[in-house]
Formats: sequence, C-alpha cells, structure tokens
Amino acid sequence: MIGDYAAKPEKLVIGLMSGTSLDGVDAAVVRIAGFGPDTKADLVRFYSRPYDDILRERLKRLCTREHSDVSQVCAMNFYMAELFADAAREAASEAGISLADIDLVASHGQTVWHIPADDPADEFGPRSTLQIGDLSVLAKLTGRLTVGDFRPADIAVGGQGAPLTPYGDYILFRSETVGRVVQNVGGIGNCAVLPAGGGPESVFAFDTGPGNMLIDQVVYSLSEGRLIYDEGGRWAREGRADEALLGELMRHPYFSQEPPKTTGRELFGPAYARAFMDRAREQGLGDADIVATATAFTARTIARGYRDFVFPRCAVGEVIITGGGAHNRTLLEMLSGLLPEQRVTNSRALGYDDDAKEAMIFAILGNDFMHGIANNLPSATGASRPTVMGKLALPW
Amino acid sequence: MIGDYAAKPEKLVIGLMSGTSLDGVDAAVVRIAGFGPDTKADLVRFYSRPYDDILRERLKRLCTREHSDVSQVCAMNFYMAELFADAAREAASEAGISLADIDLVASHGQTVWHIPADDPADEFGPRSTLQIGDLSVLAKLTGRLTVGDFRPADIAVGGQGAPLTPYGDYILFRSETVGRVVQNVGGIGNCAVLPAGGGPESVFAFDTGPGNMLIDQVVYSLSEGRLIYDEGGRWAREGRADEALLGELMRHPYFSQEPPKTTGRELFGPAYARAFMDRAREQGLGDADIVATATAFTARTIARGYRDFVFPRCAVGEVIITGGGAHNRTLLEMLSGLLPEQRVTNSRALGYDDDAKEAMIFAILGNDFMHGIANNLPSATGASRPTVMGKLALPW
Ligand SMILES: Nc1ncnc2c1ncn2[C@@H]1O[C@H](COP(=O)(O)OP(=O)(O)OP(=O)(O)O)[C@@H](O)[C@H]1O
Ligand SMILES: Nc1ncnc2c1ncn2[C@@H]1O[C@H](COP(=O)(O)OP(=O)(O)OP(=O)(O)O)[C@@H](O)[C@H]1O
Repeated sequence: MIGDYAAKPEKLVIGLMSGTSLDGVDAAVVRIAGFGPDTKADLVRFYSRPYDDILRERLKRLCTREHSDVSQVCAMNFYMAELFADAAREAASEAGISLADIDLVASHGQTVWHIPADDPADEFGPRSTLQIGDLSVLAKLTGRLTVGDFRPADIAVGGQGAPLTPYGDYILFRSETVGRVVQNVGGIGNCAVLPAGGGPESVFAFDTGPGNMLIDQVVYSLSEGRLIYDEGGRWAREGRADEALLGELMRHPYFSQEPPKTTGRELFGPAYARAFMDRAREQGLGDADIVATATAFTARTIARGYRDFVFPRCAVGEVIITGGGAHNRTLLEMLSGLLPEQRVTNSRALGYDDDAKEAMIFAILGNDFMHGIANNLPSATGASRPTVMGKLALPW
Repeated sequence: MIGDYAAKPEKLVIGLMSGTSLDGVDAAVVRIAGFGPDTKADLVRFYSRPYDDILRERLKRLCTREHSDVSQVCAMNFYMAELFADAAREAASEAGISLADIDLVASHGQTVWHIPADDPADEFGPRSTLQIGDLSVLAKLTGRLTVGDFRPADIAVGGQGAPLTPYGDYILFRSETVGRVVQNVGGIGNCAVLPAGGGPESVFAFDTGPGNMLIDQVVYSLSEGRLIYDEGGRWAREGRADEALLGELMRHPYFSQEPPKTTGRELFGPAYARAFMDRAREQGLGDADIVATATAFTARTIARGYRDFVFPRCAVGEVIITGGGAHNRTLLEMLSGLLPEQRVTNSRALGYDDDAKEAMIFAILGNDFMHGIANNLPSATGASRPTVMGKLALPW
C-alpha cells in the first residue's frame, strides 16, 4: 500500500492547512515528484474555505481552558475531519480532478492547544500540542491515504513542534547560487535563512519580532475599531516614522537575544501596543506618524535581525516576504530601503502563490512520510534529531 | 518499512490495553504469524501496570465534562503515551526480549470520552470517540513501529466503534467443529457468537444485560460497603434464588429486544439496583438469598439471550466465560445448570490467559493494519463495511 505510493514517479497530493487565526481551511492540490530535499512540487490548484462565524466561535471557545471540555474535543475532532474531507473534495473538484486520482491527503489539523514547555509544577503537564481533525475519519471520507498530525513527533524527539515551514521553504525556495531569507509576516515575524547551495542542516530560523501585530492594534485603536489592518500600508505612507521613538523601541532586549528564539503575544501584544501608543502621544505624533512608526519598527526589527544574526553567518541576495504582511506595500518599501544589497520580493515573484505556500508545505511533509523520510528540521525546531513526523490512516 | 514488516513470517507484537475502569495498562507480548482470520497468536508474556491513585484521579476528572478542559487533553495525551511506552519497555524486559526485537507496538489508548450517537440538537456533536496516548510519542519513545487508535475508523464507516473484541474472539476461539459463545462478564455482560466453521461475517455479538453490575451493587449495599464484589460467588452460594422475583425481573423489555443491542449503566445502574433491593425486601428475602437472586438473574439473562437469539441461529457446544465474572464460581455453576447441552468453561481452559486476552486482541488488530487488512467486524459494530482500523506512526 505504502509501497505502491512510493513507487509512483509523480503523485497528486492535497495539502490541508488551517491556521491559528481560525479563519478557515486552505487546500493545495500539488503535483509532487521525488521526496526529501529534492522534492519537486507544483501547485495545481489552491482552494480556500472560510469557517463561518458559528464555527469560528465554537473553535475559539474550544481553544480556551474556561470554555472547553473533553466532550467537545471528542466531537470537534470528528467534526473538523468531516469539514477537512469536504475541503479536499472541493479542492479536487475545482482542479478538475477526481478525488480517486489523488494519491494522498496530508493534513495539518486545527491546533487547539499548545504547551510550549514542561510545567515544572505538574508532572501531568508535559510539553505537548493538540491538533484536531481525526485522520481515520478523513481517510475514510475521502477514500484516500491520509497522513497528518505532524507536530507531536517533533516534540517527542525534543523539539518545539514548530516552526515546521522552514523545511518546506528550503525545498521551495532554496537556490544554488543565491542566499535567501524567507520572511513570513503574520502576527509575529519569522524568518527562515537558506544559505546558497547549503543542505537542510544549514537552514536556520527564528522569530524576528512583531509582524503585523503592532500595526494591526495601532490601526484598530486609531480608527476606533473601523479598520483591522492598514490596507496596502496606505495610512503609514501618509506619515513619517519618528526616529527617536524607533531608537527607544529597538532597545527591547528581545532584539539582541541570540537565535534560536521565539516570541508572541506575551511580549508584543495588547499591553505593549498600549505602551507604544502612550509614548507616541507624549512625543506629540499624529495618527499617520504613529502608523508609520509602527510599520517602520516592524521593518527595522526584521533588518536588525538579519544584520546581527543572519548576514554575519551567510550571504543573502534575496528576501522573500510571505504571509499577510506581504500585502503591506509600505512595509515592503521600508524593508527594501533597509536592505539595499538584497532584492526584496514576494513568493509570487518566485512562482508560488503566497496563500497556497503553507498548504503546499504540508503536502510535501505528507509525501516524505510516505517515503519514510525525516521531514522536520532540527535547526528550526530544536529537535535532537531529524525524524519522520506524521501518522498514517488507510482509506480501505 | 511496512513492506519489511509484512514480509516477516513471524512477528513479535506488544498489545497495549487500558480499560474504562481506569485500573491500569495491560501489555501482552504476542508472537503472531499470518494475518486476518488466519492469524496465529501466542502469548509470550503478560504484564500489567496499575495506575497509581493520583493518576487515576486525574483520569477520572478528565473523563468528566465538568473537570476537563482542552489543555488537559493536550497534556494527558502525551503523558499517557510516555506511560504506555514505559509499559511496553517493561513488558519486553519481563519477557526477556530486547525492545529492539519487537516488530510492532499496538495500542488501544485510554478512552476519555465516547459520544454514542449524533446529537440531533447540535451539528457540532457527531458520534465520536476519543482515546488518548499519542502514537507518535509512543513510536519515538519505544523506537518501534506503532499502530493504534482503532475505534474512530469504525465510526467513520457507520459503526459504533465498539465492540472490537469479537473479531479477536473469532481469531482466538473459533472452531471448525464446535459452535462457541465467548461471554464476557464485566460490568455489563456481552457475548460474541462463533458458529462452527463460520467465516468472520457469521460472528454476531450483543450485550446480554447486567454482568457483575447488579451483583456488585447488592453486595456493596448489604455489606455496608465492606465488600465490593462477591469473592468467588461464596455469598450467593449460601442463599437460594427467589423464583417469583426472578420471573418479574426477566420481564424487563431489554431481554426480548432483538440484537444487535447494547446496554449500560442507564438501564441496570444504581437506580435499578435500589429498586431490586426494595422488591427483594418486600418479598422478605434474607441477605444471602438476595445475592443469590442477583447472581441467578445475571445467569438467566445470559441463558435467555442465548435461547432466544443464539441457539435458533446456530448450534453452540461451548460457552467460554471471560472478564472478572469468570471468577464467580456460583455464577458459572448456575450458568452450567441453565445450559445443560453446553460445556461452560473459561478462556484459560482453552489456552489463553484471561487477563491477557484483550491486550492480545489489540496486538492482532495492529498486525492486521500492517497487512492492510480490515480488522473490524461489521456484524458486531454495525459498520457499513469491513475497514482497516488504526493509525500508524514511525519510530525513525
Ligand atoms: N491587503 C493587506 N494590506 C495590509 N496588510 C494586510 C493585508 N492583508 C493582510 N494583511 C495583514 O496580514 C495579517 C494576516 O496575515 P496572516 O494570514 O499571515 O496572519 P496569521 O495567519 O494570523 O499569522 P500567523 O502566521 O502569525 O499565524 C492581517 O492581520 C494584516 O495585518
Ligand atoms: N474473584 C472474584 N470473584 C467474584 N467476582 C470477581 C472476582 N474478581 C473480579 N470479579 C468481578 O469482576 C469485576 C471486574 O471485572 P472486569 O475487570 O472484567 O470489569 P471491567 O473491565 O470494569 O468491565 P467492562 O468489561 O465492563 O469494562 C469485579 O467488579 C467483580 O464483580
């Protein structure tokens, strides 16, 4: 069964990804040849299915201690698998492919909890992660071989179970001749560094700092809730970043910390945004200047991370921006200005639909599982060794 | 990888089972040849590891809506996998076998929730089941191929996800020449009927009614909490069952209901036991007579189930009692009296350690998965078709 899969020179794989923002499930129909670092992956079709409000509310509650219980985990694990199966079916249909011609479904699952470190006060609280969307249900409903639930395996060999995408960035974006950084700008900014001609073990990754998180909060607050982000970076473009305030902000100890390092809402969340706004007001900055300063800050944390931790280790010719922040033109221009020796671009320019990238990467991880090939990147996750992540369910 | 496993003529498999009674994890080291209905399985070593009180309390809380949340499911899914890995290691060691010589670990997981039917009032409440003990963690910690989490697949093809053991009963106990019933006497009584020379599709199974549930409650109450069960059936032996009361009890509609049928604490739990005690007192029965009547009732519900639903469909020469009730000698004698044409025995008499049987069956289910062979029994679970239950995680 697995043998038949591995023997095929070319496979059609549907990668399914549903992010922590609980906005929906992305499905990428991918044509894959080979495996491991030499995988060739071509996007056939991308399909995205948003969650409706009722489902999003349910999932939000499920992702809290207060509003969740074991019965909901049990039920939603099945419910989400049914929804993922529908998404796979619809993606195949949009691609004009019969589901029967799909060789594999590879599913990330919906993360509902993550414990980043052992709780020293509770032996029953080990580092762990929980993704729902049962793989057996998905396999039986799609009738296809199904691999998924990748993160626990990396944790079991000492890793963080995250980030998993740098491995895929390596496969999709590496170059023999030019060093590249893949910079994701989601809530948090994180980068994967791909030295020219380097092997997988040469890749390293870290969180650069806030991505859209600060910009979004500032825009929301200044617009009194009318805007949830700075569309295209237009507001920031009307203002001017305040150098003094930027200097202060860059003194945050996170930016001088050596990688590997990760950050999140604890450091750059609502409290940080409020303090930022207060300082900006004290300096007498106008609204557009505040947005411009927040945007410049994000650009600078990225450039600073490269200057201190990337460029000394590896020559970089191109920076590829992915994630929602790739739509912020002002941010991209600021970054171009700060990185005069690099070409700053987005993944579309390199032939990969930006939104589809993550789902494509999970198709690649699933394909590797079927070849029995390690698909984590210890240099990115901190795992003690390369390991085969994933679990397999059979359709028969 | 799977191919290497399937090519071996004989495999060493560790089956892991942890029951709903939350008493611990059972590990059976099993030597398996073949697969599917023709599996040959020999117990090499049985090992049982009780949960300590603190863990049992944690699990009990996790199995309630009120005291559970998503973070605990996340953590305990990893914690239990670590415990299962320890149990597998210890079982191999007790068997004098290096874990490296084990070909497969097959794990049932700890059931923490089960939703037997779609909730008509809530689209987010589908029929579902949740077993914890992450398979990737178990695979990485043992370094062995690991299969487990069988039940969801049966539900995905329309079954109840239970009972899974009749399939194994068929493999372990069927005979070409004699029809057999495997009667488990746990809290509830359930039987698997194995017609002589029949194929797997000839097997059928149903719950006969209360197993030890009523006896235990009566004994607990009459002893004012000193006894939790009637050791060896000694108390019942001192009394005499009341025919009039037995006649009344047998009028319960459950016993005339056609199989497939399942029952539980809802029908024969505490409220039922209280009503039974009240009626018995009204009839002026003494303590020993009450225990005898409860025991005779269990025996009669079993015999009646056979008379009405088994014997008309299939000749039965032997009844094999398994589960804790097999230790109740009075119950066995009563049953022998009611079944004069059958030999009533226990599984030890047929060469299978009674306690090890369930863990052995999960080793068999895991082996089937590795051969891509269906391992559910639609006639027992109500599934729409035979299907391969389980998920595979790789150790590398
Ligand atoms: N047209 C746009 N103009 C400016 N910013 C945009 C635009 N579209 C999206 N964004 C930004 O991208 C964000 C969403 O990005 P993305 O979907 O990568 O985030 P996410 O998946 O929640 O992040 P994470 O990677 O942290 O899980 C929005 O909140 C917004 O800040
Ligand atoms: N020595 C004994 N004498 C009489 N009865 C016994 C003896 N040992 C066990 N039992 C009975 O068996 C019961 C435990 O059986 P078992 O372990 O099969 O139940 P379980 O696993 O909780 O049941 P289920 O199959 O319903 O999950 C005890 O509660 C008791 O009634």
